[in-house]
Amino acid sequence: MTSHQYEGVRQGLEGIVAAATRLSRVDGEAGQLTIAGYTVEDLAPRATFEEVVYLLLHGRLPGREELVHFAAELAGRRQLPRATVELLREAAIAGAGGMDALRMGTATLGIGVGESPVEQALVAIAAFPAIIGAWWRLRNGRCPAPVLPDLSHAAHFLQQLTGVEPDPEKSRALETYLNTVCDHGLNASTFTARVIVSTRSDVISAITGAVGAMKGPLHGGAPGPALNMVFEVGTAGRAEAIIAERLDRGERLMGFGHRVYRVRDPRADVLAAAAERLYAAGADRQVYDLARHVEATALRLLRQRKPDRRIETNVEFYTALLLHGIGLPVELFTPAFAAGRVAGWSGHCLEQLREGRLIRPESEYIGPVGLSLSPR
Amino acid sequence: MTSHQYEGVRQGLEGIVAAATRLSRVDGEAGQLTIAGYTVEDLAPRATFEEVVYLLLHGRLPGREELVHFAAELAGRRQLPRATVELLREAAIAGAGGMDALRMGTATLGIGVGESPVEQALVAIAAFPAIIGAWWRLRNGRCPAPVLPDLSHAAHFLQQLTGVEPDPEKSRALETYLNTVCDHGLNASTFTARVIVSTRSDVISAITGAVGAMKGPLHGGAPGPALNMVFEVGTAGRAEAIIAERLDRGERLMGFGHRVYRVRDPRADVLAAAAERLYAAGADRQVYDLARHVEATALRLLRQRKPDRRIETNVEFYTALLLHGIGLPVELFTPAFAAGRVAGWSGHCLEQLREGRLIRPESEYIGPVGLSLSPR
Repeated sequence: MTSHQYEGVRQGLEGIVAAATRLSRVDGEAGQLTIAGYTVEDLAPRATFEEVVYLLLHGRLPGREELVHFAAELAGRRQLPRATVELLREAAIAGAGGMDALRMGTATLGIGVGESPVEQALVAIAAFPAIIGAWWRLRNGRCPAPVLPDLSHAAHFLQQLTGVEPDPEKSRALETYLNTVCDHGLNASTFTARVIVSTRSDVISAITGAVGAMKGPLHGGAPGPALNMVFEVGTAGRAEAIIAERLDRGERLMGFGHRVYRVRDPRADVLAAAAERLYAAGADRQVYDLARHVEATALRLLRQRKPDRRIETNVEFYTALLLHGIGLPVELFTPAFAAGRVAGWSGHCLEQLREGRLIRPESEYIGPVGLSLSPR
Repeated sequence: MTSHQYEGVRQGLEGIVAAATRLSRVDGEAGQLTIAGYTVEDLAPRATFEEVVYLLLHGRLPGREELVHFAAELAGRRQLPRATVELLREAAIAGAGGMDALRMGTATLGIGVGESPVEQALVAIAAFPAIIGAWWRLRNGRCPAPVLPDLSHAAHFLQQLTGVEPDPEKSRALETYLNTVCDHGLNASTFTARVIVSTRSDVISAITGAVGAMKGPLHGGAPGPALNMVFEVGTAGRAEAIIAERLDRGERLMGFGHRVYRVRDPRADVLAAAAERLYAAGADRQVYDLARHVEATALRLLRQRKPDRRIETNVEFYTALLLHGIGLPVELFTPAFAAGRVAGWSGHCLEQLREGRLIRPESEYIGPVGLSLSPR
């Protein structure tokens, strides 16, 4: 093997364009995220999650009557199969994490469901809050909450976690979060879903695989640690000393910078505004003020040390702040991310089935040749 | 968007080298398949499946004592979690297919298992025969067969299906099959597994995703239809008329030709020889003779009609013949394929975790821009 061949390996496939899509455009240079024609700033805070799902599945927003019909279709698919709940019970008892439970639960959703891609997508999207909620409540020694078809998707998600109907402010905040993270180009989980259905496999299989990919720490992001720093700081007066010490030790500050966006991540702005509205409406104003102080301090110190780099607060920081304000503990952050992104996975599956072909790259063999088994 | 950009999309990633691997080399021009240094012709009929698994996980064949230890390690992981069996029961009652059942069962294997990649790989490889067997027996109104740690992996697979210890000839034939299909470059399921662990997710998640990809008809191959033609022909005298009629109608003959190999597929030779040995040892010689007659007739007619193309019997034809001789019905062909390929998936996961980086290609946005929500 020559070194030339080895150099031809595109590990990570960086810069390789693997799909044409009508679902979203990530413009890292301009700091723009377009979702099926709409900027994330326009779409996420104003649309319902049901509208965004419809948009990603059908390529356009629904009319008023279409939306009523579609929301009912989705809500009618919230009930989990009995075997799924039993499985989540065993998983919870054994201490399985949220993404493991979500992978297990999602894998079972094919039971009794036909092969129609749209039907399977609706089943998965509708079931995610019930799976996450059942696992979470069983893990905490409670029974799963009953499925309520009358709540909006976002409100139902919170009700599946807490067992009670949530405040409208919290539902709206969660809805904005789900919308904000619904799709983001060809990230690893979305790409996984497309590779799986590219074999003409089914959407449940593809979404199960995507959940598995999102479980990885290089994908799912790190919204937990971003907030941990805020809690560690504790009071505003300690912010500068603690952050400076971390930077002196060469540590990376979670919550700042993103490899795709060179300027600002537009999702951060949307989530920051949503967090501001949420905290203005309710309690825990202290955490919000502290977080913003920690953020300002971190940005100031980072910019002092790296004046040539443009460093912004990233989506993980505001995700953590927003989800905390909604009342979600850190263990639910990545599952909540999945509950939003499943809309994009579904849209990509339908698009791949409609327009794509088998995804099958090649590998370069760098192992030995010419070995032979000893006589036996 | 210019047409140039659209043309830059590498749909299917054909010709893109996405990984360097020491696991296998598919040389379609020369008709060679190398598995971690050994030709498939040398390795598959002579090695045990346990040796091949060790080879793919550790990069070399085990010594005698290592093999005894390793085989015991693998056999000790055959028992399924209780929740997995219950789930397979529900899936079987609901009429789920083999690959759906395998996806569901695999997804649950994380219960009570740590995050060690090698441990998870062993659990999955060991559990596949038990999952497939439990689903198959429950679907046919029987109880799952007890797990027997003393049988070889291949013999245990057959025992999990039939409930009795198999003939050594059948076990050896299945073992040769599992070895033959253990790895084959970066096919779509193997690539899926690598994409999933590239996020630093776990091996169970990756193998679950790979099962989902293999379910697709563009991947899993079509060994069933290849044999269906043999059964449809029924007696040798009818072969020429039936095959000619199919070709006149422009139908593709399942079992002939392969997109990767330009010359012969070396796996076809290995499986043909294994089938010959198996049928020489046992019953159903009639089916074997008929199949070979159908094959000879098909090749003759194909070559008459396309004299400029080199057409060979492909791996699906001999797979069908061999698996039928072992006693497997068509519904078990793709699950059996997965039970062999899981060794390769596992090896690729370990290699990706050791040497690879996040796999994240890009997409080209071809949708609308500049839309805005109506006032609400």
